[in-house]
This record gives sequence, C-alpha cells and structure tokens, in this order.
Amino acid sequence: MSTAPSKARRRSKRSGGHGANLRSTGPTIHQLPWEIPVNSDAPTEPLAQEQVEAVHNGAMRVLEEIGIEFLNDEARDVLKAAGCKTSPGSTNVRMDRGFVMEKLELAPDSFTITPRNPERQLKIGGRHMVFGNVSSPPNCSDLDRGRRIGDRESYRDLLKLTQYFNCVHFAGGYPVEPVDIHASVRHLDCLYDKLTLTDKVAHAYSLGTARVEDVMEMVRIAGGLSHEEFDATPRMYTNINSSSPLKHDWPMLDGAMRLARRGQPTIVTPFTLAGAMAPVTVAGAVTQFVAEGVSAIALLQCVKPGVPCAIGSFTSNVDMRTGSPAFGTPEYMRATQISGQMARFYGLPLRASNACAANCPDSQSAWESAFSLWAAVSAGVNVVYHAAGWLEGGLCASYEKFVMDCETLQQMMVYMKPVTATEDDIAVEAIREVGPDGHFFGCQHTQDRYETAFYSPFLSDWSNFENWEDRGAIQTPQRANAIWKNILAEFEAPPLDEAIHEELKAFVERRKSEGGAPTDF
Amino acid sequence: MSTAPSKARRRSKRSGGHGANLRSTGPTIHQLPWEIPVNSDAPTEPLAQEQVEAVHNGAMRVLEEIGIEFLNDEARDVLKAAGCKTSPGSTNVRMDRGFVMEKLELAPDSFTITPRNPERQLKIGGRHMVFGNVSSPPNCSDLDRGRRIGDRESYRDLLKLTQYFNCVHFAGGYPVEPVDIHASVRHLDCLYDKLTLTDKVAHAYSLGTARVEDVMEMVRIAGGLSHEEFDATPRMYTNINSSSPLKHDWPMLDGAMRLARRGQPTIVTPFTLAGAMAPVTVAGAVTQFVAEGVSAIALLQCVKPGVPCAIGSFTSNVDMRTGSPAFGTPEYMRATQISGQMARFYGLPLRASNACAANCPDSQSAWESAFSLWAAVSAGVNVVYHAAGWLEGGLCASYEKFVMDCETLQQMMVYMKPVTATEDDIAVEAIREVGPDGHFFGCQHTQDRYETAFYSPFLSDWSNFENWEDRGAIQTPQRANAIWKNILAEFEAPPLDEAIHEELKAFVERRKSEGGAPTDF
Repeated sequence: MSTAPSKARRRSKRSGGHGANLRSTGPTIHQLPWEIPVNSDAPTEPLAQEQVEAVHNGAMRVLEEIGIEFLNDEARDVLKAAGCKTSPGSTNVRMDRGFVMEKLELAPDSFTITPRNPERQLKIGGRHMVFGNVSSPPNCSDLDRGRRIGDRESYRDLLKLTQYFNCVHFAGGYPVEPVDIHASVRHLDCLYDKLTLTDKVAHAYSLGTARVEDVMEMVRIAGGLSHEEFDATPRMYTNINSSSPLKHDWPMLDGAMRLARRGQPTIVTPFTLAGAMAPVTVAGAVTQFVAEGVSAIALLQCVKPGVPCAIGSFTSNVDMRTGSPAFGTPEYMRATQISGQMARFYGLPLRASNACAANCPDSQSAWESAFSLWAAVSAGVNVVYHAAGWLEGGLCASYEKFVMDCETLQQMMVYMKPVTATEDDIAVEAIREVGPDGHFFGCQHTQDRYETAFYSPFLSDWSNFENWEDRGAIQTPQRANAIWKNILAEFEAPPLDEAIHEELKAFVERRKSEGGAPTDF
Repeated sequence: MSTAPSKARRRSKRSGGHGANLRSTGPTIHQLPWEIPVNSDAPTEPLAQEQVEAVHNGAMRVLEEIGIEFLNDEARDVLKAAGCKTSPGSTNVRMDRGFVMEKLELAPDSFTITPRNPERQLKIGGRHMVFGNVSSPPNCSDLDRGRRIGDRESYRDLLKLTQYFNCVHFAGGYPVEPVDIHASVRHLDCLYDKLTLTDKVAHAYSLGTARVEDVMEMVRIAGGLSHEEFDATPRMYTNINSSSPLKHDWPMLDGAMRLARRGQPTIVTPFTLAGAMAPVTVAGAVTQFVAEGVSAIALLQCVKPGVPCAIGSFTSNVDMRTGSPAFGTPEYMRATQISGQMARFYGLPLRASNACAANCPDSQSAWESAFSLWAAVSAGVNVVYHAAGWLEGGLCASYEKFVMDCETLQQMMVYMKPVTATEDDIAVEAIREVGPDGHFFGCQHTQDRYETAFYSPFLSDWSNFENWEDRGAIQTPQRANAIWKNILAEFEAPPLDEAIHEELKAFVERRKSEGGAPTDF
C-alpha cells in the first residue's frame, strides 16, 4: 500500500484542491481504498429467454455437428475417454449437449484467487467485479518518450502502476511485452518482477510446458506455500484464447490442463471478431464464442472436476473496409451483454475488457473505453481484463491512459456502491431548515456529510475555465503524465519476506542456468 | 437534408475509408438517417419500490408542510382557486398530495411536438428518446478562434450543425447566447435564424411575456398555421427552471402558463445541485427535485387540464471544495436513474442532459459525457438536452465537441436498435461452411450483410497506428474541426415557402420597430 487515505486527505485539504496533483511531492493522489466492487445493477438483457435458448441450441449444434479442433493429443484422449467423438488422424472432436451441460454443471459459479498477500484476494463470480491491468501489448507509449517497443524498464513501470492503484485488483498478463529479454528466460524475469513489485494475483501465459510449470512454482514460492497448499485453492490463473474459428491450440490446452490438475483457474476467451474469425452477426459471433468457450471448459472439468473456470467475451466487430478490429462499439456492447446472458445460462463467471481502438489517449479513446465499461457493468461482467492502460486495440500500453482509466475505474467503483434512501437521506428536515432563501452548504445535514458525500476525482479538473487557463490549460493526458511520474518516483515495493525473496531469486538463477524454456532461436 | 446516404456511401467507398472525411469536398459525412430511437433496455433502478415511495412521501411532505414559493400572482390565484393553501402577503403555496396526484394524472405520459417540417416530429415519452443541441452557454469555442463570448455568427454556425446532424432531433435553447444582439430584439433575430436555418422543433425561453408571445407567433407563422391549428397540438415547447431551493420565478411561470393555455408543452427542470441548492444526499436532492417539479406541473394542469408536460432532471453534485458543479459523476448517474424511477412513478416523460465539467474537448470531456449518456439511457430518459456541444458545465459551446457528441449519439442510436437472433443470425450454416481453417469475410453470409452489419463511424479513427501516424497523427478534436468546417461550407438551409418567409421577416421588422421586448437598458 503506497497511499494512506488519511494522509492523502490531509494533503488534499492543505493544498487546496485542483491542480494540487501537479504540484504534489507527497503521496501522489487521494485514491479509493482496496475493495472488490459489488455490482447490484440488474444486467441489461438484449435477448429474450427463447433467444438465449436459440443461441445455446446453435452453439450445441456446432459442437455436435461440426466439432472443435483440439490440437493436443492429450486433450483429445481425455475427451475421447469421456465419450466425445474423435477419429484417428483428425483433430476434430464432437461433443453432445448432454456431456457439455453435465461438465459445465461441475464448474463453480464463483471462486476466490488468493495471491501472496491474502488481503488482495479476488472474488470471481456472482455480483463481484474485478479490474486488471492491460495485458500483452508489444508496444508502450508515454507523452515524453513517445511510442516504442516494450522493454523491461517499461514493463516494470507499468507493474508499479498496477500495484499502486487500488482499483487495479490483479496483475494480468505482461502490461507490455519486454522484448529486450530473450524469450527463453523472459517469463522468469517477468514473474520475478511481478511477484516482487506487486502482491496482487498473477497470471501464467499458457505458452509451453516449461513456462507454465516455472510460473506455478514461482507463485508457490512467493506465497511461501507447500505444494499441497498451492494445490488446495486458487492462487493464480491462466487465460487461454481459442484460435477462432473452432480451434484450440496445443500450448493453450497444455497450460490450462496443467493449471487445472493443480486446481488453478482458467479463463477461456474465444477471439471471435465478427466478420473475420466469426459470423458477421452479433448473435452468430456469440454462438461461436459459446461453442469454443464451453468446449474447453468441458475439457478442464474432465481433467479436474470442479476446477474453477470463467468464460471470456472478446466478441467485437471489425472495420469491414480495413479488417481492423474495433472496440467499445454498439455491436461490442451488445455482444458483451448477450455474452453475459449466456454466461449466466451456463452458471459461469464472465470476463470482458476495457478496450478501445484509438491510437492516442484522446477523446475517442475515452468514449470507447467508457462504452466498454458500460458494456461490462451492464453485462454483469465479473473480470475486466485490460481495465487500465489499453490503446490501439491492444497493441500499445499507454502510461497516461493507465492513469486515465484508473480515474474512470474509481468512478465505477463509487457508482456501484448502493444508494441509500433512509429518512435522513431524504432530508425533509434539512429542506425545511434551509427554506427557500437559504443555501445547503452551511446546514448541519451537509456539514455532517460533505467530506464523504461525493466522489472526489484525482484526475478530472472541475475548476472553471479561467482557473484552468491560469494554471496553463493543462489537458487530461498531460495531467495524467504528471501523476504517473510522481507515482513511479515514490514507488515502494510491497513487503516480501527476505528468505522467500532469496528462494525466488535462486529459482530464477537455476532455471536460467538450465536455459529457461526451449525456443528455436 | 444535406446528405443523401446513398451518395455518401458511394463517396466513402471511392475515397477508401479512414481520413476521407478530412479530404472530402463532397457531402461531408455518411451519417445515419433521421430516426427517433426507441430505448428497449429495461431501466436501471437503484431504489427499491419502498424507497421510491419514501422519496415520494418526502416530496409530498415538502409540498404539504413547507410549501413552494410561487413568485407570480396569477399562479397563486390559480392554485388558490384549486384549493391550495396560500396566505395574503406571502408567496408560499402548500398543496396536498391528493391534489398533486389528481393533477399529475391529467398530464399525458407521452405526446408529440410537430415543427414546421412534419417529418421532424418529436415523440416524447414512453420508450422514445430524442436529442437536442447544447442550450444557453454564454461562450463558444473552436480550435481555430479559441474561446469567445457568443455572437450571432457563432449562433448561426451552431444552428447549422443542429440542422445538419440527423441525430440532433430538436433545436433547444440558443446553442450560444448571441450577445451582440440587443436583448430587446435578440429573441426576434434568434427565432428568425432558428426557423429559417432549421426545420426542427424550436423552444421559447420563458423570459418575459413579450418574448414568449413573439416566439409562439413566429413558430405559428413558420408552420403556416392558423391560430386554431397552432393551439390544437404541440408545435414547440418551453423549459423552465425552478430557482432552487423551493422557488418558481415570475417569468418562468408566466411563460409556462402562456404556453399551457395554447396547448404547448413545458419541461420543468429543477436546478437541484446536491450540497448547494439541494440536500447533499442523492435521495434528498431527488426528493426536492420531485417537489419543485411536480408543483409546477400541477399548476399547469390547473391552467389547462391535459397539457403535455415533462419533468427535467438536472440533479448533480458540486465540488465541495470550490462549489463548482460537476457532471457525469457517479452521483449524477444515480440521481438521473432515480429521477427516472420517480418520473415513471408519476407517469411523466423525463428530460436529462449530456453534460460534462471539462474545459476542453479532451478525454475528460468524453468520459464525463459518455457517463451522462449512460445515465440517460439506463434511466429511460426521453429528452436529452445539451446532447451536442456542451463544455464547461454549460458555460461554453464547442464546435468540435458538437461533432464529437454527434459521433457518440449516433453510436447510441445504433446501440438502441434491437438485436436479432433468428436462425439466420445464429449462423450455424455459415460456421459449418467456413470451418476451422477459413475466414468469414469471404462467405456468403458475410457478403450478404457486411455493408449494413456494423455501425460505421464518421469521426472515430480505427486505422492502425502506422497509418494514423502517416496521415499526421490527427487527434479527435482536430478531425472534428475539419468536419464542422466542411459542414458549414456546404450548408444549405431547409426549404421554406417564400410567402411564409416574407411573413416571418415582416413580423420581425414590425416587432423591432415597436421596440421588441421591454428591457431596463
């Protein structure tokens, strides 16, 4: 924890409000405390119940009549043993709806993931909603240095932002790909950084046996856990993408099955861009999303009955003139909401994203991300991937966008708090006391509540034009730029037991000396 | 109508997509056709039914026990005659809930307003949602000329944008106050401009008897209507604000009663900023909003039983350090949604806004406006005031923000179209045809639908970073700047019968020669 709210509040009062962030040399911002929001809004449901059943029926027909390619011998053997239809020399697997529904019944509708700091435990499913950092972009950018290929320094910077902000609940994939580290040992350095710079839930890329096993071992060591303790309850997770249409690749299945055997969760996220890798219709793309998603989850339930799984919605549309993916569009919003209906139909937690297609942290990036958040909240999404820092359809992590997104995530967290309407809230006596000629600021009802009545933003500038102009007419990305610099300058890593730290370092050393993970270069 | 969609589509194809807007010399953009959206989402309801009744009870207690100041003798006489409690020498009026509910019962839950072009008829209430331009800011700005006091040229420019965009359904108040026209005749020039440059529903400011009567007469003349035809059905409207707390001013009541007598609608919009002119709690501010709003609507139902009315939500919070109003905040969103619950409780159409506090069309302006739109859609709002062009809490109309907002309004219009899930949409046969190794772009299912499958934005840039950078890395406000210039350069006023035009001009001349409306300067 880098900011004590009470301390930040004192600073905020002393320095007199707007613009203080830019001048601050103390704790950088007044942020909300750690909390897992509970989304009490009834989900928006674009489809009628019979349409939900029609999409389900379509997905089951895909699984029964067309089948899914499982490009992994072991996965096919498991499914064959469970009664699915396979044929020698073919990667195709057909499964009937009875089998699928029986297996989905085994997957819990909610679960926890406990990282090395148990106070950062995630609740996945039900009405809970958690946010994670942007994951896996090859590039990063900031206003000072511009756009560049990811490196370890930027990777570490973005992890520090991930750790700093309480509204970022987990450290997803690499917030930028550090391509200056050789691929054979990248996962070792990256997980070392992640497990020392953050104490939040971490993720393993399912990119080969050695990497997956190394990451599980490092998470176990960082948590000070025995193998049995690690296996007993979720400590980390993986996210696998199908190679849409209709394919699950070898390493994705291998990683997910390895985690499953040790009781660790998998999010299965089909990459169903409508008009490209999936039908051009929203209903068709969601149908394919269901078929691809539940087929992998059924496999994992065969491997380890009851292992926690979630289904990930990444269904959006493409620009039909260029093939570029688009995000935060009307079609994206509806696809996410319908995916929510389907996830509830199957009793699975749902993942989505806070995505945009914009190339810089300007107004387009903000409205596309706001529409993605709207989609997530109204769909009843449980896990919001890429919640902070995403630009360019995921090809770039922006430092400023990270800070901007945390401002809107905080606003969502406040939005999700229940509204109270007690007699005191309804305030007839305050209205009587103030009367037609008064002002509410001075009345006791206000004085008792004003410090906590409203959300106070750390990035939005609510001053009037003249004051804003006097302070240099600083636009949002420039304000965000000042904030991330302060955060990085003052960053303190979360505490880690020295013996555990040494064990982690020794593991990384040893695995590096063994050559890390195999590569062909 | 300035853009034929078919022509625009041809251009769009020929010029090859992104960036074409900036180079266009033909019809400026490919915009959606005129349509009144129907919002089929179930509204988000933060309060339980007993809490709705508690807010109602609080509002009725305010009306029964505290009363509202009606600073208008005629209004008090009407209310006294209807049985409300008044006292000589006091402006206070108390009304009991039986009276209020009986009068609200008379107000229709939906109605139409028909401007001079009947194709631009508004549907107000039910599931319908209409958008209007920003209204009443004293300043305007654009990237070329910066921020400046409003003048007639800017006023006319912003009216042209209002007319151009099909997603702007009505011409609300003045999109900027043209302060270079003397206040005595400003309404004459402004309405002349509005009724010649647009053919959409117009609005009268309730700022004095002469102005209101002049505007009604001008709308009647522009519509080619007899007095009887004008009185027979809504042709225009006024919006009145209470002087919160608990006061209705003379000119507002005078204007609304004048319109009511002629069957024209009024939107009653209390200015209930929580912590300033209303209680600091969301529930308390909404309670006061209800009391102020329904008291004026009850008056209008006494004046003309059955006259169409709507209630306007403008409840938000203020920055408690500076007193500045904030918009698009979590509290604003919840207040709007709860106002929606109350409006449905009383069977009244609801107005809200597309508001923000930002000082420039940057990312903050975009997320605040997107959250305001989210609030409007999820609250079941029927009339979105200030839907295009608003900045600075309403103190400035931005040309670029106007264009940006029209992009998001179009996206909302597409979002509101029903999602279909027929067997064709679910597309099992297309999934079978494409199989695991294909791509959907080429399949017949896609070819049959790709031209209309997805919303195509006119402002968002979905190209990849390299293409965007090659074209100059143009950010959203700069793209919007190029678009409004094209629109203004190519603007053609909607047709108006020459005899009517002459009659309108003659009326303005005559009223100017008579001195216009009285002022004390």
